[in-house]
Amino acid sequence: ARPAGSQLGEFRLIRHLRRRFGQTGRSVLRGIGDDAAVIRSSPGRTLLLTTDLLAEGIHFDLETATFEDIGYKAAVANLSDIAAMGGTPRYMLVAVAIPPSRTSAEVERLYRGLMRACRPYKVELVGGDTSASRHGLFLSITLTGFAQAGLALTRDGARVGDLLYVTGTLGDSLAGLNLLVTGRKRRIPAGGGSNERHRQYLRYLVDRHLHPTPRIKEGQLLATHRLATAAIDLSDGLSGDLAHVCEESGVGAEIETTALPLSPACRAYAAASHTDPVRLALTGGEDYELLFTISPGNRAKLDRLAQRTGCRFSRIGTVRPKRFGLRLRRGNGSSRRLAIAGYQHFQDLRTIPQGAAWSR
Amino acid sequence: ARPAGSQLGEFRLIRHLRRRFGQTGRSVLRGIGDDAAVIRSSPGRTLLLTTDLLAEGIHFDLETATFEDIGYKAAVANLSDIAAMGGTPRYMLVAVAIPPSRTSAEVERLYRGLMRACRPYKVELVGGDTSASRHGLFLSITLTGFAQAGLALTRDGARVGDLLYVTGTLGDSLAGLNLLVTGRKRRIPAGGGSNERHRQYLRYLVDRHLHPTPRIKEGQLLATHRLATAAIDLSDGLSGDLAHVCEESGVGAEIETTALPLSPACRAYAAASHTDPVRLALTGGEDYELLFTISPGNRAKLDRLAQRTGCRFSRIGTVRPKRFGLRLRRGNGSSRRLAIAGYQHFQDLRTIPQGAAWSR
Repeated sequence: ARPAGSQLGEFRLIRHLRRRFGQTGRSVLRGIGDDAAVIRSSPGRTLLLTTDLLAEGIHFDLETATFEDIGYKAAVANLSDIAAMGGTPRYMLVAVAIPPSRTSAEVERLYRGLMRACRPYKVELVGGDTSASRHGLFLSITLTGFAQAGLALTRDGARVGDLLYVTGTLGDSLAGLNLLVTGRKRRIPAGGGSNERHRQYLRYLVDRHLHPTPRIKEGQLLATHRLATAAIDLSDGLSGDLAHVCEESGVGAEIETTALPLSPACRAYAAASHTDPVRLALTGGEDYELLFTISPGNRAKLDRLAQRTGCRFSRIGTVRPKRFGLRLRRGNGSSRRLAIAGYQHFQDLRTIPQGAAWSR
Repeated sequence: ARPAGSQLGEFRLIRHLRRRFGQTGRSVLRGIGDDAAVIRSSPGRTLLLTTDLLAEGIHFDLETATFEDIGYKAAVANLSDIAAMGGTPRYMLVAVAIPPSRTSAEVERLYRGLMRACRPYKVELVGGDTSASRHGLFLSITLTGFAQAGLALTRDGARVGDLLYVTGTLGDSLAGLNLLVTGRKRRIPAGGGSNERHRQYLRYLVDRHLHPTPRIKEGQLLATHRLATAAIDLSDGLSGDLAHVCEESGVGAEIETTALPLSPACRAYAAASHTDPVRLALTGGEDYELLFTISPGNRAKLDRLAQRTGCRFSRIGTVRPKRFGLRLRRGNGSSRRLAIAGYQHFQDLRTIPQGAAWSR
């Protein structure tokens, strides 16, 4: 999905630009408003196109991530967009604007990280652009991919009664980010005072933040088995990305908090830092898991697929009528409206619960 | 072509990244190192992919250009890359990073400029990204296009003895930029003290800078008639872009200065500002004309094509062996080595001859 962060009211701006400039002809099956554009290409397959622009101080911070980390995550953000369409990523273009203070060796490390994330998927670097920047490092990635004709997953197909699912676990990336920031600011030595399991958890969460896995395989399975009615990747956080699906599909949704998949590490982090793990799962961005909907009749088929492939799919709620809105049901049966707090990537670190108590 | 401007030694960096990360499989007919990547697509045609990242204070300046101008030129830079491949531009992705001081209305004007440049070619906006920026406006464009299989023009086909040609006239854009900068700094009223022809020239040169024409039609003609052995668009300036063709093709070249096509307006500007018009033509970037080579046997065919279509093609020199290097032959027969001064876009305005005397 598209990273948030603008003070211009990004959602409104995009909606306006789309209405004003996004009119397209018949060869464009999906234009502005999805994880990737879907273009009618050769018979039997469609071309997928996605792009991201990442800014220093907004999407990454050179104090908590290395150049290699930044490249890696930038590639994953785009691979994940292709995953959300059920596609196969294929060719990448990379443009970078480099401040005078940066060296060639640093730029090379950025590319090394990019290519390391791409290698498992055989994505090839086919072009790009390099230029100077007066202020800060900017990185723009464009990724192309392919999907079988008629099988690309989009955000607009969720129907009332469909079941809501996610892949993997939620909130790990935000917990890992908090740990990185806390560790740096408070100079707590990694694992200082904590036992071996805590050190494992710490490594796991930081790795989930720095090296997330794009769910390419899961997206392809959902597409080729015609299981998902809608899909999106979780880059802005569950609440914000669910809102995108609901808006595009013209529906509402209900999430059951007890069903949110949380890793043992995330639970332990939440307990140690007196954070609500549900809040981590709902607002934490950059998990790069997939959120998708299936028709209730396909539940058994999905379960069998999960068993056969080892993929983790967790049912987290139900698609409701539009007038229902987006609501959260707690374990005690209480229900409240879901606040759509879009994850603001790096720039809103101030407002994210800190993990100070983690390794005390 | 790829805008210059990095202090890292951009050419060397790109060459290194290409060697290190740009290895591609058989489906990539051209990867890093050309105006656009060329990908084997459906039978009969190839997919073209190009991207540009434009930075405030490097590629544009909000004091000499409006948001609409910036959008327009950004689109042309990419349309021109597709033109240089002899292709048909088709789908565009636009990513923009916006500082907090900018308004939605300004962003909309940027898009309006983009779409105005695209409309004649029926290019469709299919996606993109918006985000915040802490410093300055950054704009990233990706354009896809198509070419007939086997007919895409590349930089690497020039052979010794081929004739060097350019479309249109050279140096107009740099003259127009100088006029904009001078006019703003010295508050000379447009046309103040000059006659009607001078006012026309002024408007022409400024328009050539702000609204250059991508040579889509010319590129397609050269490709479909199998005339060009190599082609590139002139974004960095003739001397720099010629160096790219020579490097990729493994050849040298000789330019005849008396053959460089100069507009009457550019000549008048050069005379009034005591500037060598040959220098404007050689170092002026952003003309977005095409530089191409043809086999000597195709000269008559090209002339007939020019007559029939109204396209302007000017022969400016000859392809020489690599050991010859890049040389310039003056009208008096003297010859000297061509200095490859890559046009540095906005950031090197200080070093560009100013047009102070123009409208005195």
